[in-house]
Amino acid sequence: MTTIAVIPGDGIGPEVTAPALDVLDALGLDARTDVLGHVNADTYLRTGRALSETDLDRIRPCRATLLGAVGDPRLGDTAYVRSILTTLRLELDLYVNYRPVKLWHDRLSPLREPSRRAVDCVIVRENTEGLYSGVGGSTRTGTDHEIAMDVDLSTHQGVARVLDFAFSVARTSVCLVDKANAVRNGGQLWQRCWRAAQDRHPHVATSHLYVDAAAMRLATDPTAFDVIVTNNSYGDILSDLTAALAGGIGVAASANLNPTTGQGLFEPVHGSAPDIAGAGTANPLAAILSVALLAEHLGRADQAERVRGAVAAAVARGHVTPDLGGSLGTKEAGAAVLAELAR
Amino acid sequence: MTTIAVIPGDGIGPEVTAPALDVLDALGLDARTDVLGHVNADTYLRTGRALSETDLDRIRPCRATLLGAVGDPRLGDTAYVRSILTTLRLELDLYVNYRPVKLWHDRLSPLREPSRRAVDCVIVRENTEGLYSGVGGSTRTGTDHEIAMDVDLSTHQGVARVLDFAFSVARTSVCLVDKANAVRNGGQLWQRCWRAAQDRHPHVATSHLYVDAAAMRLATDPTAFDVIVTNNSYGDILSDLTAALAGGIGVAASANLNPTTGQGLFEPVHGSAPDIAGAGTANPLAAILSVALLAEHLGRADQAERVRGAVAAAVARGHVTPDLGGSLGTKEAGAAVLAELAR
Ligand SMILES: CC(C)[C@H](C(=O)O)[C@@H](O)C(=O)O
Ligand SMILES: CC(C)[C@H](C(=O)O)[C@@H](O)C(=O)O
Repeated sequence: MTTIAVIPGDGIGPEVTAPALDVLDALGLDARTDVLGHVNADTYLRTGRALSETDLDRIRPCRATLLGAVGDPRLGDTAYVRSILTTLRLELDLYVNYRPVKLWHDRLSPLREPSRRAVDCVIVRENTEGLYSGVGGSTRTGTDHEIAMDVDLSTHQGVARVLDFAFSVARTSVCLVDKANAVRNGGQLWQRCWRAAQDRHPHVATSHLYVDAAAMRLATDPTAFDVIVTNNSYGDILSDLTAALAGGIGVAASANLNPTTGQGLFEPVHGSAPDIAGAGTANPLAAILSVALLAEHLGRADQAERVRGAVAAAVARGHVTPDLGGSLGTKEAGAAVLAELAR
Repeated sequence: MTTIAVIPGDGIGPEVTAPALDVLDALGLDARTDVLGHVNADTYLRTGRALSETDLDRIRPCRATLLGAVGDPRLGDTAYVRSILTTLRLELDLYVNYRPVKLWHDRLSPLREPSRRAVDCVIVRENTEGLYSGVGGSTRTGTDHEIAMDVDLSTHQGVARVLDFAFSVARTSVCLVDKANAVRNGGQLWQRCWRAAQDRHPHVATSHLYVDAAAMRLATDPTAFDVIVTNNSYGDILSDLTAALAGGIGVAASANLNPTTGQGLFEPVHGSAPDIAGAGTANPLAAILSVALLAEHLGRADQAERVRGAVAAAVARGHVTPDLGGSLGTKEAGAAVLAELAR
């Protein structure tokens, strides 16, 4: 039996995790959950640490972790979110952030041209390096002469492995996005690893765009892409942009993966949304779709498809929360997916 | 009499610079031009340097420089583009990249919802630091163990001055875009400078978004923004994204400014577009609108408005290049603007 660690987190995190766990239950996977309900801002405020060594020891043996959302306005821009999310990504060396984006229904697209609405692509974001490396510092801190540095770090090993993953999930093509014309050191390394990866995967069509051009292209024709592979920072930006073109953050799910160890962390792309926390209106679909990714990860692609089918059906019927044009609350929207699953 | 340095550059650069200079002529400013026709890829390929000290000595005394576009496929991802563009930005300390974005005609918007089409905002991009600092390097270069680092550099002086500029051009509000929740050192410095800038400009409304959320918001409702201020890299990405929502790269103009010395470099946001170079189909409007920014910079806001009015009229009549749905060539599209100016 597999153990799935669950971190409901803050804000709407616990609200969307509840229906996601109901869906997980309904799939009848051979799995039990271990809920770490205390990994949140309250604990951080009380003890100065949200994710303890003991917590990590509970998570490490799990092949899968499901996370709701972390973030709290009381903690402003502090190190709190990093101390959970980035720590998990780095501690478990989850080097792939896999973000599939699909338009669930034509009415959800913000695009005018009908032929360009049906986005169906995957952002493969490097998840352990880049601007998230934590390398850097500042001097004359707090003065009028402060100099702050954050290192955008790329290693051959780190780049090569995420490129290989991108090729492994390509259906038709892989597009590399970088800024090699301006950010030279990492740019050259990515370009070199890219040429080698192309050689290793000669049958996959490839293309290359600078990140500014990629943002422009995505905004007008996201259907042009299959797999986009890019660094941590550009992946963060482009995956949210792409999600916006597919119905918004309410339906964007993600998997943080280490394809070598077989571990994964599954989470909605959205944050803890303090502004609507407690209102019972948060969209549970991103969390539910994260469960689909989790099922796939555990070898149950059939169950993942079932979940996606149920989500598509609920969306088509308009049995959704206000952000998608419906009028259901979080619980009811979750129940709608369960009802579709039971059909 | 003011001298304006002109660098036509590569690819479509000279093609769009020609009609832009015709428009400049038609404005009757008290100015002469000094054309540096050799600052291009051919020179770089021949001599290893595109922009010499002598060139810089010609440019330095000019209050304004007009640049067409630089970039050449023969030079791949080399240091060439940087050696002109980034060099000029850093040498002249042009710390503001000012990118106004305006929808010239409803039909140019890719957005479905009519009430969200009329984007009219400005991206103020820090232009001398961040990931463009040139600080960094690599070790074990060229091996399977290469580590590459590009430093995202922020200084108190650099951040404070660009924030002040952003407040100075705000009509209604300023939105700071950063990633202070993940990129900690620069993030904290920007946040501190931001609070101080807010205190210095208490009458301007402000907001703050993380860059991923900003990309998402822009893609669905760009009308929500007046001035966006952000770092070099995010500014690069968000200004192209926003341009895509306002008719594309063919109408996106930019000013690189040093408000302290009064110097400016004006250029279309687009590149040298080698794929269409020589075809005579490049859109000259971005270069022409860069001339409008240049006129404004030289104290002739009246002439800048004349140019914008002429561009709006030509767009409304459909007297434009194919990228905007017209059928004119570069020369004819330029002539159409001149005809409107003469009306
Ligand atoms: C060509 C490139 C280096 C440049 C940049 O990123 O600054 C361009 O994209 C721009 O936005 O002016
Ligand atoms: C909360 C933040 C640090 C995080 C990130 O940028 O990685 C989030 O935006 C995401 O995309 O998972």
